[in-house]
Amino acid sequence: QQSDEMAALEERLERVEQELEDAEGDELPWDQYISELGGRVQLDQTFNLDASDDLEDVISDPLEDGAEFRRLRLYVEGAVAPWLDYKVQLDFAGGTELQDVYFKIHDLGAFPTTKIGNFKQPVSLQELTSSKYITLMSRSMLTDFFSPGHRTGIQFSKSFADERFNIAAGAFNSNFDSGEAETTGITSKGQWDISARITTPVIYRNDGRQVLHLGGSYLHRSYEDELEFGLEPEVHKTDDFVAGTILDVEHSNSFGLELAGVLGPAHLQGEYAQMDISRTTGKDPDVDSWYVQGGVFLTGEIRPYDKGDGDFGRVKPNSPFTGLGTGPGAWELAARYSTIDFTDVQDLAPAGFTPAFGTAEQAASEVDVYTLGLNWYPVAHARWMLNVVQADQDALGDATYITTRFQVDF
Amino acid sequence: QQSDEMAALEERLERVEQELEDAEGDELPWDQYISELGGRVQLDQTFNLDASDDLEDVISDPLEDGAEFRRLRLYVEGAVAPWLDYKVQLDFAGGTELQDVYFKIHDLGAFPTTKIGNFKQPVSLQELTSSKYITLMSRSMLTDFFSPGHRTGIQFSKSFADERFNIAAGAFNSNFDSGEAETTGITSKGQWDISARITTPVIYRNDGRQVLHLGGSYLHRSYEDELEFGLEPEVHKTDDFVAGTILDVEHSNSFGLELAGVLGPAHLQGEYAQMDISRTTGKDPDVDSWYVQGGVFLTGEIRPYDKGDGDFGRVKPNSPFTGLGTGPGAWELAARYSTIDFTDVQDLAPAGFTPAFGTAEQAASEVDVYTLGLNWYPVAHARWMLNVVQADQDALGDATYITTRFQVDF
Amino acid sequence: QQSDEMAALEERLERVEQELEDAEGDELPWDQYISELGGRVQLDQTFNLDASDDLEDVISDPLEDGAEFRRLRLYVEGAVAPWLDYKVQLDFAGGTELQDVYFKIHDLGAFPTTKIGNFKQPVSLQELTSSKYITLMSRSMLTDFFSPGHRTGIQFSKSFADERFNIAAGAFNSNFDSGEAETTGITSKGQWDISARITTPVIYRNDGRQVLHLGGSYLHRSYEDELEFGLEPEVHKTDDFVAGTILDVEHSNSFGLELAGVLGPAHLQGEYAQMDISRTTGKDPDVDSWYVQGGVFLTGEIRPYDKGDGDFGRVKPNSPFTGLGTGPGAWELAARYSTIDFTDVQDLAPAGFTPAFGTAEQAASEVDVYTLGLNWYPVAHARWMLNVVQADQDALGDATYITTRFQVDF
Repeated sequence: QQSDEMAALEERLERVEQELEDAEGDELPWDQYISELGGRVQLDQTFNLDASDDLEDVISDPLEDGAEFRRLRLYVEGAVAPWLDYKVQLDFAGGTELQDVYFKIHDLGAFPTTKIGNFKQPVSLQELTSSKYITLMSRSMLTDFFSPGHRTGIQFSKSFADERFNIAAGAFNSNFDSGEAETTGITSKGQWDISARITTPVIYRNDGRQVLHLGGSYLHRSYEDELEFGLEPEVHKTDDFVAGTILDVEHSNSFGLELAGVLGPAHLQGEYAQMDISRTTGKDPDVDSWYVQGGVFLTGEIRPYDKGDGDFGRVKPNSPFTGLGTGPGAWELAARYSTIDFTDVQDLAPAGFTPAFGTAEQAASEVDVYTLGLNWYPVAHARWMLNVVQADQDALGDATYITTRFQVDF
Repeated sequence: QQSDEMAALEERLERVEQELEDAEGDELPWDQYISELGGRVQLDQTFNLDASDDLEDVISDPLEDGAEFRRLRLYVEGAVAPWLDYKVQLDFAGGTELQDVYFKIHDLGAFPTTKIGNFKQPVSLQELTSSKYITLMSRSMLTDFFSPGHRTGIQFSKSFADERFNIAAGAFNSNFDSGEAETTGITSKGQWDISARITTPVIYRNDGRQVLHLGGSYLHRSYEDELEFGLEPEVHKTDDFVAGTILDVEHSNSFGLELAGVLGPAHLQGEYAQMDISRTTGKDPDVDSWYVQGGVFLTGEIRPYDKGDGDFGRVKPNSPFTGLGTGPGAWELAARYSTIDFTDVQDLAPAGFTPAFGTAEQAASEVDVYTLGLNWYPVAHARWMLNVVQADQDALGDATYITTRFQVDF
Repeated sequence: QQSDEMAALEERLERVEQELEDAEGDELPWDQYISELGGRVQLDQTFNLDASDDLEDVISDPLEDGAEFRRLRLYVEGAVAPWLDYKVQLDFAGGTELQDVYFKIHDLGAFPTTKIGNFKQPVSLQELTSSKYITLMSRSMLTDFFSPGHRTGIQFSKSFADERFNIAAGAFNSNFDSGEAETTGITSKGQWDISARITTPVIYRNDGRQVLHLGGSYLHRSYEDELEFGLEPEVHKTDDFVAGTILDVEHSNSFGLELAGVLGPAHLQGEYAQMDISRTTGKDPDVDSWYVQGGVFLTGEIRPYDKGDGDFGRVKPNSPFTGLGTGPGAWELAARYSTIDFTDVQDLAPAGFTPAFGTAEQAASEVDVYTLGLNWYPVAHARWMLNVVQADQDALGDATYITTRFQVDF
C-alpha cells in the first residue's frame, strides 16, 4: 500500500517537474494571454570611402554616412482564444513606428488563415524574410521599390498538399495614417493595394539540406495622381541615388519572380520584378529590377528554409562561441549583384516627372550595386556583419561604402 | 516512520503544486515589483456612406473616413509596498501618448485612497468605463465635451457604508505639457481643474443581475482666455461637426447626472450635463448635452457593474467560441440617442466666438446622433463591433456612417 | 529499498523547490533571453516662489514652473550568450528617447569589458550615479555642462588590483541622430568625443561604512564650428539662466576631479571641472565649475558605494514603512552649493558669441545655486523628495524655487 502511495507521489512530482521544464523555454507561460516578449537591436556604422565628384555635386557633398540604430524593436504576442492570436511590435529607432500589429485567425476548419491589421504585404522573398535573418545588411533595391512593406489590411493564406503550394492574398489600405511603416521605396497616396503570392518548394529533401524554392507575386497599387520614389544604393545611412515624382499616375501593376536554393552549406536566391505604371495621360513607363545573391557557411551550417511561409529563418551555429576555448560560432561569406532601371521614366519630364535632384536623366537613372559580406554568428541570437558595397549610378558615377552591424535579438 | 516521512513529502509536494497553480493566473508573480503586463489593440474601419452637400461644402469634401488603430496600448503595473501601487500605460496608436501613469496610495487606515499622476478625472460614467468595455464604439458627445480625460493631478476617493456611497474628488493641472492625453472635446489652457463625483448603487441585487446606479459630478475649469472646442459626431475617424473658440473665458462650471440600470441581460444608461461658461465680458453662454443608451445580450450575459468604482466591467461570454463546434460567444444589440447644443454660443460672434469653419450658426449648432450597434464577444478578451451612425448637424444636414472594430486585450 | 526510493523522491522534490525559490527573485527567469523588465517614474512639481525683476524682464515673465513627468522609463535586459549582455531602455516622458541601448561584452579572459551602443560617457561621478539614486532632485550644473550624457559609441573598462583602480575609456559619436539622448548642457555638432575616467576607493572599510573615493576624468569634444549651451539653475522645469552659442569652435578639452566620502550615515561629494575651448580665431575661453554636497541619514542608513563602478547605489531603509504601525522608512537631509562661471566667454561677443537672451554679460554670467533637500524612502523602491533651491544669476539676480518629486522604480 505504501508503494502505491509512493507511486502516486512520484507521478505528481513528475507532472510538476514537467511543468517547470516547459516553463523554461522562450516564453512567459504564466501570463494567460501573453506568450512571448522579445525584440531586436541592430546598431550600424556606415563609412563612405569614396564617391564620384558628380554624385557629390548633384546629390550631397559629402554623401551622408555615420552611426544609427537601424532597428530597435520590442514585441509582445499571445493568444486570446485557441483560434485568435495577436502580435504588437513597435520600432523605437527613430520615434515610434508600428511594425507587426495584427490579429491572426487560424485553425477554423477549412477557413484560410486570416491576418487583420498592420503587417507586410505578400510581395518578395527577401521582404518576407525577417531582417534578423537576411544575409546582407540591406535588402535589395528590388525589394525596396516593389514591396510596400508594412501596410494595414487583411490577408488570407492557405497551404495545400502538405505545404507543396502556399498561397497568400490580401487587400491593403495604402494611405493609412496612424504610424509610419518601415520606409520603402515608394510613397503611394492611393486607396487600396491588392497583392498575392504563391510559393512552392519544388525540392525539399533531407530536412532542408537540399531545397529549391519557386515563387511568384502580383501587386496592384492605386495612386492619387503622384508616385513618389527614392532609393538608397543598398546602404541605409546615405542619400537616395534615384529619386523623383511621377505625375498623372492612376495605378501600377507589378509582377515578381523568386528563385532560391539550398545545397548543404551553400545557398542562392534571386528575384526579378517589373512594374507597369498606368498614367491618365501620355506614356506609361516601366521599371524593372533583379538581383542574385549567394552565400556559404564556412562552418557548415544550413540556411533554414520554411516550407509553409516560403522564406528563410534563424541560423543556429553548429558549435557556438560561448566563451574563450569554446566553438567558433558560424561564419558565412556572401555576395550580391543587384540592378534597377528607371531610364524609361526620363522621357516623361518635364510635364510627367519631377526629379528630386539634378536632371531627369540623373534622377531617373540605372543603378547597379555589388555587395560582399562576411557574417559571424557567435550564438543563435547574435550576429556581427561586415559589408563592402560598390554602387554605380549610371549618370553620376560610383560610390564605395563599408558598413558594419552589431545585432542581438531576444 | 516511513509513512510519516511520506506524509511530510506529500505536504511539501502539495505546496509546490499550489505555487505552480497560483503562478498560472493572469500575472507574472516572479517579478517582485511587476504584477501584470498587458495591453489592448483596437483596429477601426470607418465608411462614410452619405453626407449632405452643406456638410461637405462647409466642413470637408469628402468627409474623412478610413482605417486607423483607435487604441494601441501597453501597460505594466505592480506594487513597491503593500500600500503603494503604480501603473504605467502608454498609447502608441499615433506617436506616444501617456495614459494612466500614476501612483496609488491605499490601505493606510482611515486615509482615503490617493492617486497621484496622470489619470482620468472623476467625471462621467461613460468616461470612467474603460474603452475596452464601452457598449458602442465611441463615447457620447457629452463625455467628449464635458470630461477632461487623462490629466495630471491628485485625487482622493473613499467608499462608505459597504460601498453604498462612493466619493472621488481631485485637483488637476490642465496645462501639463509632457505627453498629450487622450483627445477630448475641449482644449483648455488654464491652471487647475477641480472635480468631484459621487455614486451610489441604489439597487444592487443577485450579484449584479438587478442594478440601479445613480451618480453626480461637478467640474470647475480655469482658462487662459480661450475655450477651444471640436466634436466629432460620435465617429472618431471623421471631421468635427461643431468647432470653434470662445474668447474672454475665465472659468466654467459643469454639473453632470448619471443614471444606469441592469435588469438581467438588458442594461440602460443615460447622462445629462450642463456647462456654465463665465466670461470676463459680455454674455455667459451655456452648453448642455444628454444621451440615453440601452443594450441587451441575446445570449443572456449580464453587464457587470462595479459598486465601488461606479462603472462597468468586462463581459464574459456564458458559452465562449473557442473553435468550430463550440459555443456562440456573447451577442449584444445596442442603441443610443445623443444630443449636444451649442446654439447659445452663436450670439457671442464675432467678438466673443471664432468659428472653426463657416459661420457661427454653422460651427456652433446642435448635433443629434443616433447609433445602432451589434457586438460579438467570441471570448472574454476579444470583441468585434459594428455600428451604424446617423448624425444630424442642425445647420448643415445629415451624414451616415458604418464603422467596425476588431478588439483584443491581453 | 522503499526508503531509497523515498530518498530519491525527496531529492527531486528539493530540486523543484529550489527552482521555484530561485524564480521568485526580481527576475523573469522563464524567458531564456530576457532576465529583467523594469522601469522608473518620477513625477515632479516645481513652484517658482520669487524671481528678480531683471530675470523676468530678460529671460521670461514669469519664469516657467509646473508639473512634469521628469523621467518615465521602461527597460528590458538580458543575455544572449554567457559573455554578451544587452539592455534596451526608453524614456517616454516627452515623446520617445533612447537611454541605455547597448551590448556589453565581458568575461572573455583578459579582454576588457566592452560596451557598444548608446550609454553614458564616463564623465562625472554624479552623472554616472543613476537618477534613481542621486541625493538631490537635479544633478549639478557641472554635470549638465561637462557630461555629454548618453551618446553612441564604444567603451572599454577594466578594474585592477581587486577593484582598487578602475578605468573606463571610450569614443563616442556626438552627432548621432537617431533618438535624442537625455538633455545636457551642451549641444555639439562635431564628430567624435574621446573620454576616459579613472576612479579609486582610497578607503573602503566595514562593507562601505567608511569610504573615500577619488576620481578623475578627461573629455575631448569636436565641433562643427558652434558650441551651443543652455543651463537651468538646477531646477528642471524652468528656463535657462545662462545660454548662448560660441562660434568658430574647433574642439574642447575638459578635466574633472571627483572626491566623495561615506562615514556611517553621513556622506559627502564634490567635483571640480574645467573646459578649455579651442577656437579657430581669436581668444580661447575657459569655463569652470564646482559643487560640494553632503547628506545624512537621520534613520542611520549608509549610502551604498560601488567600488568597481565608482558610483553610488540604492538606499535601503533599515526599517521600511510597509503600512501603519511599521517602521519609519529612511529619512535624509542634504545640502549643496554649486557654481559655474561663463564670464570668460563674454569678451567673445559679438563676433564670437551670440547670447540666447539679453547681452553677452547677461547670457554668459556666473550662476551660484544653493539647494536644501529632504528625502523620504518609505521602502527601497519608492522615494519622496523636497528641495528648496536658491539660484543667483550674477548679472540678473535671484530666484527661489520649491520642488517636489514622487519616485517609484520597479
